[in-house]
Amino acid sequence: MYSGTNVDKYSFRNDYSESAHPKIIEKLLSLAYETNTPYGEDKHSEAAANIIRDLCGKPDATIAFIGGGTATNVLAISAFLRNTYDAVICADTGHINVHETGSIEYAGRKAITIPVDVDGKLTPELIDPVFKGFESEHMVVPKLVYISQSTELGTIYSKAEISALSEYCHANGMKLFVDGARLASALMSRYNDVTLKDLGALCDGFYLGGTKNGLLFGEALVLTDAESADHLRWLIKQRGFMLAKGFVVGAMFEEALSSGLYFEMAKYANESAERIVEAIKQAGFDLYAPFQTNQIFVLVPEELGRELSDTYGCFIQARLPDGRWAVRIVTSCASTEAAITDISEWFIKKVCAGIVKNYIGK
Amino acid sequence: MYSGTNVDKYSFRNDYSESAHPKIIEKLLSLAYETNTPYGEDKHSEAAANIIRDLCGKPDATIAFIGGGTATNVLAISAFLRNTYDAVICADTGHINVHETGSIEYAGRKAITIPVDVDGKLTPELIDPVFKGFESEHMVVPKLVYISQSTELGTIYSKAEISALSEYCHANGMKLFVDGARLASALMSRYNDVTLKDLGALCDGFYLGGTKNGLLFGEALVLTDAESADHLRWLIKQRGFMLAKGFVVGAMFEEALSSGLYFEMAKYANESAERIVEAIKQAGFDLYAPFQTNQIFVLVPEELGRELSDTYGCFIQARLPDGRWAVRIVTSCASTEAAITDISEWFIKKVCAGIVKNYIGK
Amino acid sequence: MYSGTNVDKYSFRNDYSESAHPKIIEKLLSLAYETNTPYGEDKHSEAAANIIRDLCGKPDATIAFIGGGTATNVLAISAFLRNTYDAVICADTGHINVHETGSIEYAGRKAITIPVDVDGKLTPELIDPVFKGFESEHMVVPKLVYISQSTELGTIYSKAEISALSEYCHANGMKLFVDGARLASALMSRYNDVTLKDLGALCDGFYLGGTKNGLLFGEALVLTDAESADHLRWLIKQRGFMLAKGFVVGAMFEEALSSGLYFEMAKYANESAERIVEAIKQAGFDLYAPFQTNQIFVLVPEELGRELSDTYGCFIQARLPDGRWAVRIVTSCASTEAAITDISEWFIKKVCAGIVKNYIGK
Amino acid sequence: MYSGTNVDKYSFRNDYSESAHPKIIEKLLSLAYETNTPYGEDKHSEAAANIIRDLCGKPDATIAFIGGGTATNVLAISAFLRNTYDAVICADTGHINVHETGSIEYAGRKAITIPVDVDGKLTPELIDPVFKGFESEHMVVPKLVYISQSTELGTIYSKAEISALSEYCHANGMKLFVDGARLASALMSRYNDVTLKDLGALCDGFYLGGTKNGLLFGEALVLTDAESADHLRWLIKQRGFMLAKGFVVGAMFEEALSSGLYFEMAKYANESAERIVEAIKQAGFDLYAPFQTNQIFVLVPEELGRELSDTYGCFIQARLPDGRWAVRIVTSCASTEAAITDISEWFIKKVCAGIVKNYIGK
Repeated sequence: MYSGTNVDKYSFRNDYSESAHPKIIEKLLSLAYETNTPYGEDKHSEAAANIIRDLCGKPDATIAFIGGGTATNVLAISAFLRNTYDAVICADTGHINVHETGSIEYAGRKAITIPVDVDGKLTPELIDPVFKGFESEHMVVPKLVYISQSTELGTIYSKAEISALSEYCHANGMKLFVDGARLASALMSRYNDVTLKDLGALCDGFYLGGTKNGLLFGEALVLTDAESADHLRWLIKQRGFMLAKGFVVGAMFEEALSSGLYFEMAKYANESAERIVEAIKQAGFDLYAPFQTNQIFVLVPEELGRELSDTYGCFIQARLPDGRWAVRIVTSCASTEAAITDISEWFIKKVCAGIVKNYIGK
Repeated sequence: MYSGTNVDKYSFRNDYSESAHPKIIEKLLSLAYETNTPYGEDKHSEAAANIIRDLCGKPDATIAFIGGGTATNVLAISAFLRNTYDAVICADTGHINVHETGSIEYAGRKAITIPVDVDGKLTPELIDPVFKGFESEHMVVPKLVYISQSTELGTIYSKAEISALSEYCHANGMKLFVDGARLASALMSRYNDVTLKDLGALCDGFYLGGTKNGLLFGEALVLTDAESADHLRWLIKQRGFMLAKGFVVGAMFEEALSSGLYFEMAKYANESAERIVEAIKQAGFDLYAPFQTNQIFVLVPEELGRELSDTYGCFIQARLPDGRWAVRIVTSCASTEAAITDISEWFIKKVCAGIVKNYIGK
Repeated sequence: MYSGTNVDKYSFRNDYSESAHPKIIEKLLSLAYETNTPYGEDKHSEAAANIIRDLCGKPDATIAFIGGGTATNVLAISAFLRNTYDAVICADTGHINVHETGSIEYAGRKAITIPVDVDGKLTPELIDPVFKGFESEHMVVPKLVYISQSTELGTIYSKAEISALSEYCHANGMKLFVDGARLASALMSRYNDVTLKDLGALCDGFYLGGTKNGLLFGEALVLTDAESADHLRWLIKQRGFMLAKGFVVGAMFEEALSSGLYFEMAKYANESAERIVEAIKQAGFDLYAPFQTNQIFVLVPEELGRELSDTYGCFIQARLPDGRWAVRIVTSCASTEAAITDISEWFIKKVCAGIVKNYIGK
Repeated sequence: MYSGTNVDKYSFRNDYSESAHPKIIEKLLSLAYETNTPYGEDKHSEAAANIIRDLCGKPDATIAFIGGGTATNVLAISAFLRNTYDAVICADTGHINVHETGSIEYAGRKAITIPVDVDGKLTPELIDPVFKGFESEHMVVPKLVYISQSTELGTIYSKAEISALSEYCHANGMKLFVDGARLASALMSRYNDVTLKDLGALCDGFYLGGTKNGLLFGEALVLTDAESADHLRWLIKQRGFMLAKGFVVGAMFEEALSSGLYFEMAKYANESAERIVEAIKQAGFDLYAPFQTNQIFVLVPEELGRELSDTYGCFIQARLPDGRWAVRIVTSCASTEAAITDISEWFIKKVCAGIVKNYIGK
């Protein structure tokens, strides 16, 4: 269920409601009369790609700047699953299964879904019995495991968890891909021990999200598996994902990464969320999923869930059997000081008013 | 064959080598902290859509802002060709046939190609004998005619020509779609008699290109045929074309259209091209295709073709049996006064130097 | 897990291990020099289609004779799901989900799976909460419910159950399709109250299986929904399913249906299975799923499961937590008297030998 | 344009109007109670495959028995073109381009067509300039050349011609596939110098047609390129082409090949056609395409074209500018002595009656 869309003052609906960080836009202004090679073969894209190659310790990685997250997922999965009978394994809560309108199936591939816990994470133990069931030509061939970092529930995989998945996948002829729509927030999480170099070493592909981290739009796909990257530009063009002015995305990533702004924006979003979580804890509300990045899932009584949704545009993630609602609060680099203070005080006030006494201490 | 990509001073390679008109970028800067509804359901997209609806006299038209031209073509053709056996008819020089890496076929549809003259235009007379050949279940069913305005050769269809195509298509159970990557330039051509209202009345769909007319990226798809527009947002999302920050494209079109800048930029590009054509004529070179918009196809000896390509990044369109090369020169709103003067003088100088005397008077 | 494939004497592996009933083959012999119109537009196909139209009370139904079950499912689902965002709902045990190598996804459509009980049946109560979750353009649109009669577990839907599904589907803008690979066996079941006329009235499409009921190959697809049947022959040809000698399948169905042989063969298979079930019960073994048609799922200790598989080619359906195996025994019109007696005595002997005493009475 | 379908006495419409040679059907009768492993993994399929491997001198070739010609083409092209940007080059008259309802495009691949002469043959000289045009990521990648033996016009490639194509393809990173719907007729042509061993050595894949050469249905796909044959059974199943009773096709090929009947039937069809051609020549009519196999394309005045079509069910291939019609006459193993005599006399009588005097000697 989606939230109300007309928020008067402060929105915590998501991290893609404002255009972009001013420094990013100013960079584009500087290119108004600078001639660039089209279709992503320009100097800005190359510079940004090289920074990413350095950061993830993969000098030969293939990098492509793509317009959005669903497009990047479709592209990556097309690159990994070359045969029509190849299939991808994902969590049943995975974005590609739930919220991309069957784009994987439109691309002719089966997504094999595995039920996961509230932390939204896949493990070798969950995958293995499912994987072993695909044993004949009457069934598809699992070739890829897809996870998100951070997950749809805002949690993050530890290095040990990703290492275990990587080892399992490679031992079983599968590749590992990480949807990084919110990778910046994951990398800057105080709970995180996974570096870009780890991702470079452990995964066959991942992407650094830009849309949800202060860019106008755009994601940086990183393929470390050379075979999967074969003829990637053909795949991009054929799916309608190649931007004539590809240098626009390249230049935004160049600006964000070379200046460190990419990481500062994510750090700010995480710290803003943490301030709100502190208010939530102080007010005595429980969380639906562990807090780790820039997404908070707070459990509140139904009437407060409605109010949060109406006031701050928040999305309702789930309704619990005990009547409580899990409401999502998302911060970004555009979350203002005033907004953070406002929603923090909202939680404190509810408790002071005695509205939620029944839930305190649960 | 593509041209050299490292042009030192002035480029006439294409109309998508610079980021965007400064006013467009400044508009995006103003939205750095303005909260907007995601996925194109925002007030800027709605305002831009309403301007377009007014301009084309179709208050009920479905409008969608898409990231690029190939994506928009794929989307429109998917919208028109719902059945897997439906096919699109296009010129053999059509962009969807030649330069979109089989994106139509990737979408599972057959493109039926018809050889056309150097003006790149389809006519009912060319289409009819081909159309009549599709008569049984062993063949696909032609359901759409695709044309470009301006064409790949920079020419434009007259109102009479589009009317004839519209009448023919509708009499034969087909729709008519106009690829408008360079529609602004066509509309502002001094040779043009087709208005947006004509397109609204005669076509089932078309798009107003932004990428090639001063925007950072983005095209405005207009579907006047309600049946074809059914569940359009599902089609957009499924193909990976729905931008989370859809308001970015909406706001750029809002700014460009509400201020008249959209048309001024195209007019400037056309007039710049016309100045170059005057120099070409004065120098005595022939044109490969009639000059009408912002693309010039000039016939020069091979050695000058190479020089044009090296100096100005120009694309070689064709090599004639008589040894001459057809070289493409494209202007845009980012073509500077200095650049236009420079290339104009280049042509004059070649003649003064006596290099091209053999071609004068042909 | 598939069973051993080299069975010396008697096979109960499946109902498609022998070529065809001799009367069916003799019919084809009579056509060795009879000229027929190709591609299924012949007099035998027409005669067979008319018999089917009469049997299901649908004089305007569209009938097509297709080579096999997966092809028929793919075709029907393609006919019902014209839009790329349309999706089919099925049981997680459904043949299209489990054993057709992702053919639905290869056709670009999402199969939404619902976990079902051991009887393998979908109900409106199971479907409704899933259906209601598909509410925006970020998700596919459920347009079809797919069930099998008999199910993968050999059970059959009652008329009340199919009526409830039909009512639910039509009230919610969905169609209902019945995979009838083993429809003959279901129709002739002593537990059955669903007639072909009921199917004609309640479903939008179904098929009468031939491959698993004594024909060399072939299924008769019946579409009662005219809109879904539009241009069906184009869909058939495009997917590679149109047989040049379509009259071969038409003539087999004509022969089987006009003589009543089609139903006699299924009745014989069911009665043969019932004789084996009586022996199983007498021997004291439990069944994994209720016995209703020509498939028996018997629960035996692991060592007997292996023996059944080795001796009679039986497929192992499941391994229970208590150590027992669910073994599938399938009869057909080619199951000989000797074979039925042999396997029946096998069960009795095991008990007499005291091997399975631990399981008696469970 | 298709011919009349209700032919009273003798049909020369095509070579797939009768069920099958009686010996083929009798073989199937012998399997009415013989248990066989399903899905083509049976002893008859294996025996037939081994005969084919011997005949084409490729002991490691992958063989699959498929239900029909379009299905076999779709399958083979899917096997050769694993990447979505891979494309197939074919003659513009090629069956996959003209008469398979866009099945290649439905499978997501582009068919690049090349205009050919009336003999319907591709050559390296025709292919090369087209091939060289595909040079960037804005275009597909040609990976396969598709030809038919015999061609749609009944002509055959010589060994030298196939060798030249093979050499060209392999030198340019392409594979070569031969559609053998009428391969038997080509092999048995008195004008033929291509053996199955040649095909095995020169091509990456081809098929031996059964439907058009006396079998009930079925084609034998031969893939000599191991990489393209990878996971072939998954491709077959996913496309709906795997027959549960695959042994039915295997047994027909086993019977036809082990007894030599396969080649005798084609020889008979060719010789029957030759008798008709002699009558045509004697009567003084020209041929539209060179006569080489079991298809005759005779040029007759329009009124005789209509009569041929009405009397013998013949298909009209073309209408010439001079008013003559090219009418197709096809023989098969089911063409009776009486039928051949009848149509031969028809030609002679027309001349004796003076009807066609205007055309004699042209």
